Amino acid sequence: MVRLHDNLTSGNCYKVRLLLTRLGIPFTRVEYDIDRGETRTPEFLRKNLNGRVPVLELADGRFLAESNAILIYLAEGTAFLPAERFERALVLQWLFFEQYSHEPNIATLRHWITFNLLDDERRSLVAGKRRDGYAALEVMERHLDGRDYFVGNRISIADIALYAYTHVAEQGEFDLGRFPVVRRWLARIAAEPGHIPITRE
Amino acid sequence: MVRLHDNLTSGNCYKVRLLLTRLGIPFTRVEYDIDRGETRTPEFLRKNLNGRVPVLELADGRFLAESNAILIYLAEGTAFLPAERFERALVLQWLFFEQYSHEPNIATLRHWITFNLLDDERRSLVAGKRRDGYAALEVMERHLDGRDYFVGNRISIADIALYAYTHVAEQGEFDLGRFPVVRRWLARIAAEPGHIPITRE
Repeated sequence: MVRLHDNLTSGNCYKVRLLLTRLGIPFTRVEYDIDRGETRTPEFLRKNLNGRVPVLELADGRFLAESNAILIYLAEGTAFLPAERFERALVLQWLFFEQYSHEPNIATLRHWITFNLLDDERRSLVAGKRRDGYAALEVMERHLDGRDYFVGNRISIADIALYAYTHVAEQGEFDLGRFPVVRRWLARIAAEPGHIPITRE
Repeated sequence: MVRLHDNLTSGNCYKVRLLLTRLGIPFTRVEYDIDRGETRTPEFLRKNLNGRVPVLELADGRFLAESNAILIYLAEGTAFLPAERFERALVLQWLFFEQYSHEPNIATLRHWITFNLLDDERRSLVAGKRRDGYAALEVMERHLDGRDYFVGNRISIADIALYAYTHVAEQGEFDLGRFPVVRRWLARIAAEPGHIPITRE
């Protein structure tokens, strides 16, 4: 059985739990407290030198890090990753958008605000992350206008990756009221059969 | 023929030119001045809503954005992306590492320093990016110790993606003298047959 090195409040980890559940893949999980350095111990760094969860541990003991790489690995050969080459490339495009333009802004502000982690260095970063997070939401709003899903006409791992932190963006004090198209898409993803919330193990 | 919407100093664009050249795929290119807003015009946003280069334009007029998604698209079915599922996933892991932990620190400082773009907001970000950029180089140094390439025993798009901004990290005032393993790997990639420098069109 696969084992997920996990954190229950992390959207990056939630992506993987959601996909594993949707695919009916059984898994066990190990919880880490990110803010207490539990992913920076020598033992953890043997799983992922970059010191972050999620890490997927295969049954044979091999480790795979980076949430979106794990999504692609699990989704290959399933309907969550299109078989057609260009459609698949568009899914990858949105996965890189998520990690570069969305997560560092929206997920980070949510984390700092939710857990009261705003020190002086971080406080100086808030305005830039607020601006860039709204810019990412604006890109999503414009792309989804006239579309039900990010790529093609069914849910893919692009939707799963972008759902993870968008649906909790208000915990980072982003006002989703300005993004009606995004909110309809969030409701559509949450209504998918087999959907699980972020807090479910 | 494919057309690359491009910028000659951008490492993200260079990755794509290097892979296209290595694969023997002919292409034309259109140059954009990023700092003059040429990738934020309404016309450009029809190619990529996120307003960034590179964008690959296929012969049929479809557009693909995000440098590492373009690398995967071009490398599929070639030796630059392993056929074995887990090895391929490891390549993807390093591509996401590059965009999340490496590029935002090392590429961004290089860009600001090279083009004299350090205003007050950016100046407040330098120390954090310096620390996180060195952390990314340290991960690379430890991973490459005992290895010739990031994944397996030949060059892949993981090496191409990470080469792009690492080989010019000193332009961002990162001291590569501290990373002898990384420097040997850089020399190994530069000595590959068909390698081109960043400034070649």
